[in-house]
Amino acid sequence: MIETLAQRRELCFWGWGYADEGLTPEEASHVAQLAQGLGAQHKPGQVPRLEEFTLAAPRVAAPDALAAMLSCTPYDRITHGYGKSFADLVRLQMRDMPNPPDWVAFPRHEDDISALMDFAANSGAALIPFGGGTSVCGGVEPDVGGDYGAVISVDLQYMNRVVEVDKVSRAALIEGGALGPELEAALKPHGLTLRHYPQSFQFSTLGGWIATRAGGHFASNYTHIDDFVESVRMLTPSGVMESRRLPGSGAGPSPDRMMIGSEGTLGFITRAWMRLQDRPLFRASASVRFPGMREACAAVRAISQAALFPSNCRLLDPAEAMVNGVGDGVCALLVLAFESADHPLQPWIARALELAADHGGSWDQAAVDRSLAGSGGAEDEAGEHRQGAAGQWRNQFLRAPYYRNYLTPAGVIVDTFETAITWDRFEQLYNGIRERVGAALREITGVDCMLSCRFTHVYPDGPAPYFTFYAIGSKEGDMASMLSRWREIKLAANEAVTSFGGTITHHHAVGRDHRPRGYDVQAPALFREAFAGARSVLDPAGMMNPGVLIDTPARGATVGGVLG
Amino acid sequence: MIETLAQRRELCFWGWGYADEGLTPEEASHVAQLAQGLGAQHKPGQVPRLEEFTLAAPRVAAPDALAAMLSCTPYDRITHGYGKSFADLVRLQMRDMPNPPDWVAFPRHEDDISALMDFAANSGAALIPFGGGTSVCGGVEPDVGGDYGAVISVDLQYMNRVVEVDKVSRAALIEGGALGPELEAALKPHGLTLRHYPQSFQFSTLGGWIATRAGGHFASNYTHIDDFVESVRMLTPSGVMESRRLPGSGAGPSPDRMMIGSEGTLGFITRAWMRLQDRPLFRASASVRFPGMREACAAVRAISQAALFPSNCRLLDPAEAMVNGVGDGVCALLVLAFESADHPLQPWIARALELAADHGGSWDQAAVDRSLAGSGGAEDEAGEHRQGAAGQWRNQFLRAPYYRNYLTPAGVIVDTFETAITWDRFEQLYNGIRERVGAALREITGVDCMLSCRFTHVYPDGPAPYFTFYAIGSKEGDMASMLSRWREIKLAANEAVTSFGGTITHHHAVGRDHRPRGYDVQAPALFREAFAGARSVLDPAGMMNPGVLIDTPARGATVGGVLG
Repeated sequence: MIETLAQRRELCFWGWGYADEGLTPEEASHVAQLAQGLGAQHKPGQVPRLEEFTLAAPRVAAPDALAAMLSCTPYDRITHGYGKSFADLVRLQMRDMPNPPDWVAFPRHEDDISALMDFAANSGAALIPFGGGTSVCGGVEPDVGGDYGAVISVDLQYMNRVVEVDKVSRAALIEGGALGPELEAALKPHGLTLRHYPQSFQFSTLGGWIATRAGGHFASNYTHIDDFVESVRMLTPSGVMESRRLPGSGAGPSPDRMMIGSEGTLGFITRAWMRLQDRPLFRASASVRFPGMREACAAVRAISQAALFPSNCRLLDPAEAMVNGVGDGVCALLVLAFESADHPLQPWIARALELAADHGGSWDQAAVDRSLAGSGGAEDEAGEHRQGAAGQWRNQFLRAPYYRNYLTPAGVIVDTFETAITWDRFEQLYNGIRERVGAALREITGVDCMLSCRFTHVYPDGPAPYFTFYAIGSKEGDMASMLSRWREIKLAANEAVTSFGGTITHHHAVGRDHRPRGYDVQAPALFREAFAGARSVLDPAGMMNPGVLIDTPARGATVGGVLG
Repeated sequence: MIETLAQRRELCFWGWGYADEGLTPEEASHVAQLAQGLGAQHKPGQVPRLEEFTLAAPRVAAPDALAAMLSCTPYDRITHGYGKSFADLVRLQMRDMPNPPDWVAFPRHEDDISALMDFAANSGAALIPFGGGTSVCGGVEPDVGGDYGAVISVDLQYMNRVVEVDKVSRAALIEGGALGPELEAALKPHGLTLRHYPQSFQFSTLGGWIATRAGGHFASNYTHIDDFVESVRMLTPSGVMESRRLPGSGAGPSPDRMMIGSEGTLGFITRAWMRLQDRPLFRASASVRFPGMREACAAVRAISQAALFPSNCRLLDPAEAMVNGVGDGVCALLVLAFESADHPLQPWIARALELAADHGGSWDQAAVDRSLAGSGGAEDEAGEHRQGAAGQWRNQFLRAPYYRNYLTPAGVIVDTFETAITWDRFEQLYNGIRERVGAALREITGVDCMLSCRFTHVYPDGPAPYFTFYAIGSKEGDMASMLSRWREIKLAANEAVTSFGGTITHHHAVGRDHRPRGYDVQAPALFREAFAGARSVLDPAGMMNPGVLIDTPARGATVGGVLG
């Protein structure tokens, strides 16, 4: 029995998922083959155990008044000591955690958070808001630098209720600590859904999504959680900042847009009113094959500019299609889908397919017709566990992070990075990244590596390409040398993305890892200074998540982290 | 011949429109009847002449280096001394302008603006960015308070080019000073259009739209100019802040969203990359009659939540329908339209009309069919000067501000205010505003006044209601007493809108007039302080448009203006 103040099912502290959950035998065999194919000669040994970590004692004592919500058990400290990036998993394999949180707090109300802020102000501690801890960019790591006397990771899991549902406006007031499945379960009896399904859906929270501008289910129109935020309530060290519930407004710069994406540097997102959807009843889908990437891009551009708003418009480039077993290395594949709670979608998909045909796309019309015929009834039980290719892809999408639990100790680097770019510069970016990051991978690992791309979201003015690469980190499974290889690759990727004009992140946030050669280059310097000016009002002591997004001038925290 | 440094056709300095443009005889007769019907006994006399204004001499001398771009002619000072609000027009009738700009600047490049900023910093002057000057909320008035030594209104009309067009991404780089018709004319040869048509379209600028979060053409989905901004270049007193051109991003809080809605308080919007549309080829429209407002609202709600995205979804309440000659005082009328550059719209409008029928709506199907049959060809010449009811409404929409040129001196108050509210609270707000503002109008004017409502924009979670009222300000045409009546009404409207939970402005900005009992109540106090913190970085001397949106702590400017 682990010791913890957490209420939730025990997590795998060294990897993805729950402690009692592993790879299926088929998955295990699949990833073992994959590792071998990449040249890994090492078989993962014993998984890490909590007692193998040497954690420094908390630097401050817990005051009596807060003791009931503070934990310093190894499980709590280690599960809050890293996010879920590749570097995090490697360091967990190394049983290495030089900067664990001194304490992990489990507040149950805003008053508890205020008390923590008072304590932090008095003790010189930093506070790190912690939702599900699935950051892949060093967003929750207590490596805060500066002169902080201690770090408290503040886990909002007890603040996870759906407080109120407004069926008329299709909105709900939801606490920041609610996990995806928790809030969807509470909305379901009302026939409503937030329909925000990042890959981390099971393990990430509403507050985390808002703080990091998470990307979601819809490939177009409603791409980020931003679009579903009706109002936000944030508890800052200077007090509560709560915007008014409004469907739209033109009254000054949007307060919500200052809080959305603030990554814990301004305060805690304790609640938000979120715009919801009716549960979809109608669907239409197609898999369209194109002779090459250029034709596929032209089609996707036409579809994205036609105001048809597909819910899925996932273009797999030739490499990605091949990895997924649906391509020959030349063809590109577009997975196109529409959904609606209101109307049949034949005219929508028919027009999108006309546009695809204009650019050499071909598809199985019978499958399209089946997708149309199969919709219009009650939604299937789990909503998302659909049959067929879409369901299969979805399952693999949700399972992919689990594969790392095996691949990382086997010495394989699997990582992703994503961006967005206007159409006019896409081809240059796409070729440039494949060339430059491809060359970096080759130089660093000594062999050609798999680097593939898909579009996760599309806009009228450009796509959001998402790159995945597999590289051998260390044939012998030497974690330290693998980590140093990953560092080089990560910096090369940051540099390539921003120098070709893309955004350093489309939906994985900035954290610490996307700052060097990334956010620090992309974001206007004056904007970062202005944001620091706003921050100094909301958090004058600079206690909130120091080093993430921007430096914390008040306390001298500069970006550290695994790339520092 | 007037003396001016302006390049543009001479404006009517005391009202709406151009100097050589007046009401048609039919319009003149129509508004005279209207005024008479409202009880006005006064016929407007001579229109104001420039020489009737007594303007204080500029408080600072123009330095030689700037002399070529600075003007202090009466025409330039008076056309930059007010916006176009009702209070502005009344004060112009009174030949009263106690706070004209000391100088009006006409920069041609960013360097000119920088030089003005240097001069302002040295002389203690304030700068007011001036686009088209159509603010209806005191956004450009040089009533800055504080200890400013002078005020320079900075007119961007020479910075009005479309600099670059990216047809592939459908975007253009446009200078902030471009008027609506100027930028549309430059885009037209490319087959592209911004399609942002506020009522002020002819006389307002891109920079003004962005600075004020203007509402535009599309009733749904793309409601504000915000949605079309791809990147912004702003010249602040601390330097240039320019965001990266991106279709979407999740990298920290959006820099654009800090500049959008900043109303000149952070700097000058000198350029922006804007997302464009192809020129529409297909249209579908219908006028749907409902037995009453409640049924109509239920239908509009259903349509807004069906993801059909009509370009027009203008619901006229019974009073507004009657004023427009299309209602009996009980029925409500929905003007519904779809447009597309890509596809015929029959399925879209058919489904929207099904939803309307579900709530008791009825319409002339032959007219719908005609609208469908008439589309699909090349766009008619002017794009917007269409025949039929829609064209008629549009013409009246654009002409309405001209009517004030007669009605104001006749002693009639015509004004509007608009908001947005979630559906669950709409009925309470609608009834509450009609009751409370209706009572205020009755008390203040002594008679029942016309107060009508339409929806200008709709969201899945609520509508944007827009209220219009006609009241007798002074039977004898006494402008001073009319102004004081208007003040009382305006404050009552501000109070009603915010106390029923709406936003103080959906798309007319905050300026000075929407602060008391409005923005100062609605916007979170901490947000306003944080915004001031950001501002103090970008404009440490507090020279930019002081008193608008927030107070300027650096220089002691607090909200003044006509309501202060």
